[in-house]
Amino acid sequence: MTGIRVTIWNEFRHEQRDEAVRAVYPDGIHAALAKPLSEAGMQVRSATLDEPDHGLNEAVLNDTDVLVWWGHVAHDEVQDAVVDRVIRRVHEGMGLVVLHSGHFSKVFQRLMGTSCNLRWREEDEKERLFVVDPSHPIAEGLPPYFELPNEETYGEHFDIPVPDEIVLLSWFSGGDVFRSGVTFRRGRGKIFYFRPGHETYPTYHDANVQRVLVNACRWAAPTNGPVPVYGHAPSLEARG
Amino acid sequence: MTGIRVTIWNEFRHEQRDEAVRAVYPDGIHAALAKPLSEAGMQVRSATLDEPDHGLNEAVLNDTDVLVWWGHVAHDEVQDAVVDRVIRRVHEGMGLVVLHSGHFSKVFQRLMGTSCNLRWREEDEKERLFVVDPSHPIAEGLPPYFELPNEETYGEHFDIPVPDEIVLLSWFSGGDVFRSGVTFRRGRGKIFYFRPGHETYPTYHDANVQRVLVNACRWAAPTNGPVPVYGHAPSLEARG
Amino acid sequence: MTGIRVTIWNEFRHEQRDEAVRAVYPDGIHAALAKPLSEAGMQVRSATLDEPDHGLNEAVLNDTDVLVWWGHVAHDEVQDAVVDRVIRRVHEGMGLVVLHSGHFSKVFQRLMGTSCNLRWREEDEKERLFVVDPSHPIAEGLPPYFELPNEETYGEHFDIPVPDEIVLLSWFSGGDVFRSGVTFRRGRGKIFYFRPGHETYPTYHDANVQRVLVNACRWAAPTNGPVPVYGHAPSLEARG
Amino acid sequence: MTGIRVTIWNEFRHEQRDEAVRAVYPDGIHAALAKPLSEAGMQVRSATLDEPDHGLNEAVLNDTDVLVWWGHVAHDEVQDAVVDRVIRRVHEGMGLVVLHSGHFSKVFQRLMGTSCNLRWREEDEKERLFVVDPSHPIAEGLPPYFELPNEETYGEHFDIPVPDEIVLLSWFSGGDVFRSGVTFRRGRGKIFYFRPGHETYPTYHDANVQRVLVNACRWAAPTNGPVPVYGHAPSLEARG
Repeated sequence: MTGIRVTIWNEFRHEQRDEAVRAVYPDGIHAALAKPLSEAGMQVRSATLDEPDHGLNEAVLNDTDVLVWWGHVAHDEVQDAVVDRVIRRVHEGMGLVVLHSGHFSKVFQRLMGTSCNLRWREEDEKERLFVVDPSHPIAEGLPPYFELPNEETYGEHFDIPVPDEIVLLSWFSGGDVFRSGVTFRRGRGKIFYFRPGHETYPTYHDANVQRVLVNACRWAAPTNGPVPVYGHAPSLEARG
Repeated sequence: MTGIRVTIWNEFRHEQRDEAVRAVYPDGIHAALAKPLSEAGMQVRSATLDEPDHGLNEAVLNDTDVLVWWGHVAHDEVQDAVVDRVIRRVHEGMGLVVLHSGHFSKVFQRLMGTSCNLRWREEDEKERLFVVDPSHPIAEGLPPYFELPNEETYGEHFDIPVPDEIVLLSWFSGGDVFRSGVTFRRGRGKIFYFRPGHETYPTYHDANVQRVLVNACRWAAPTNGPVPVYGHAPSLEARG
Repeated sequence: MTGIRVTIWNEFRHEQRDEAVRAVYPDGIHAALAKPLSEAGMQVRSATLDEPDHGLNEAVLNDTDVLVWWGHVAHDEVQDAVVDRVIRRVHEGMGLVVLHSGHFSKVFQRLMGTSCNLRWREEDEKERLFVVDPSHPIAEGLPPYFELPNEETYGEHFDIPVPDEIVLLSWFSGGDVFRSGVTFRRGRGKIFYFRPGHETYPTYHDANVQRVLVNACRWAAPTNGPVPVYGHAPSLEARG
Repeated sequence: MTGIRVTIWNEFRHEQRDEAVRAVYPDGIHAALAKPLSEAGMQVRSATLDEPDHGLNEAVLNDTDVLVWWGHVAHDEVQDAVVDRVIRRVHEGMGLVVLHSGHFSKVFQRLMGTSCNLRWREEDEKERLFVVDPSHPIAEGLPPYFELPNEETYGEHFDIPVPDEIVLLSWFSGGDVFRSGVTFRRGRGKIFYFRPGHETYPTYHDANVQRVLVNACRWAAPTNGPVPVYGHAPSLEARG
């Protein structure tokens, strides 16, 4: 059995422009995300904004089981044709794991049908994530809660549709709460939004965060479910 | 107390082109939809595709509590600017009741983030709608199930997100089932999709169908809930 | 139109034994709960543990639209016959609003099918409640969040079934989060669990808390929905 | 890796008393249920009503990952002590797959908190099951719909809590629909209710039904998720 084929899409701008980010993620955020997934036996590749087609041409997407998405300052530069292609593949069953500021990506907004807006600040607050759905596959191997000593803060209200499932809730030292790990289904594709991961913090080196990433990719990978047939359909019953 | 302000949007093409449809809805589908809503004390107006701005300019939408949407053969003619405006208003809290073939409207597809596709046929089948959520406000006054002697058939799979609530399930004599009354929330707006209403059948003259329409408009009307404030937000806690 | 008929059930032991509680609720917690409901036009009565049948005989329950439940130290003293009667009425459509330590009441545990356990401490922490479902009727008139300067702390994991809806999430200064306002449906009855209300704090005198109570009773009141008929049922279709 | 440990509980009365049932299930319904699970690599054993402790003593349940439950005419004979034990194990994480008339078992009723009532008849009707959640693990390997030529009919309203997920909806030739494959979580345990399986029909020999059983046991098997700690808990934050 070959591993789940994961493509990590990273905007990859902060790391090139900002020394502080490069200090945390010297090979790019995508390299840090790739590490635990590769170690878990997945076949991981990466794609970045400044590649042709942002690295997401038809062949790459057709060869992807789960797409991980990290973007922040250049959502508007993502071409609509690529967004269309990603959404089509999600509808076909490709899993999608949207990270942190990816809440404002075109891909996520269009799949949600809402603004995906929220409240935020960068004040080095502590984040504590609580598992509220302990039997969910994405919670496997996690403790009842875990902490990130410094993160960007996101606060409610988070303008998303009612999630299918809420796996994680965050507490922040500055007084906010947030639905930090939430699932959605769109077409045959499964989507997981996971809040942590500001570029200036070593969040993706954290063992619990890595565990969530591995679990999420496994959960979001396509299953061999029925492929619905749509359109005109004759009666299923013989007519008397 | 003034009544709920309802705007009924009707494509209004079938009725002008097709004698059989005009026989059922001589003043347009919108007139048939308006009747029970007006009788229930709502302030009802209508808007149609061929009016300027499809009858849905800023002033009309800002003065609308609930928008009812019936469209079928001309979804593509609805201007994107109007679609944007409707979606913005739903996000602000305007209710939306999408009827029958409106499942393929741009408005509904964009709010759902899925194809909204389904299986269908026009074979004069019997439809029987079962209430599966008897304490839901949209089920008020309904019997445990009710029948429509002839309708267009819609069959699963219906490619929508997992609904927030399922109020009605349909049985069809040709062998299909369908999630026929389903709710969604997007931003501060409440959305109800209601399946019945093919243009060649007197469905909107049926008392149970009318009851669902009245209930749905009441349920979808905006409440005086909190208006979330988004964007940069200072800490809620004094810092030591 | 007469008002919603609310029965407030209060264990009413703390107030009689503990001077500190009596100082906050001199006429009993039930009197404090009754005030905003009466002012909103509801017909309110109260019932307490030490009355015959705990004040909840058949006649009282049959005359009740919404039952509000506050209990803490004497859950085990509630007779099973009364618990059965309450549950039967919820199944028939009576609304139920369970408050604070009522999470451990027999009534709530049996309707949930889980332990309803949680983590707790009494350390005068600040609680901040965020509305996460701004268009929900129970959020009407609330700000985006509100604070209680001192409350008992409840922390996740809260061992309840996945709620039908989550209206409120709590942040606590001691580092916890909690699903503080959640809904469930059982039979034809609607249930709202609302976390705040420790007996030593003036929580039920808070205007936002009172608003939630009023909204919850309105939301939970029975509707005139279909009364399902169960058991053996002949075919709905003529047989050829 | 050893297989999932499944215990199949069968009332095992019909097969002993009724020749027609024995003709379909000569070794008992439990043997028919065991076959596809064993073939899928699971470690299967069975337990029946007339064994001591109904075959479900502490040791057996502690050694069970997923309990499958088939009962019909003797729900009342199941001892409450065994029911308590099963529920405790579900809360601890044991999966539970409840079949057909098991909807009226004490175990299921107590985990649901509702009557679990429904409408029914035995008229050899055709049942057609539609997958409405095609990416759900329980739908893996299924076609978009499948048929059972003769089954007992169950019709809505089915008095269960709002399911966490609806995987399958049934159509019946006699005019009914039913939520036939639904999931619930209670404590750390996952529950799947699956409608088909009347004792006089060869339903459990059907390949699609067997596929659902295998998938359901895999889905319901415990994960290595966090074990919540309940009760008094110190502050998670140092106090200033």
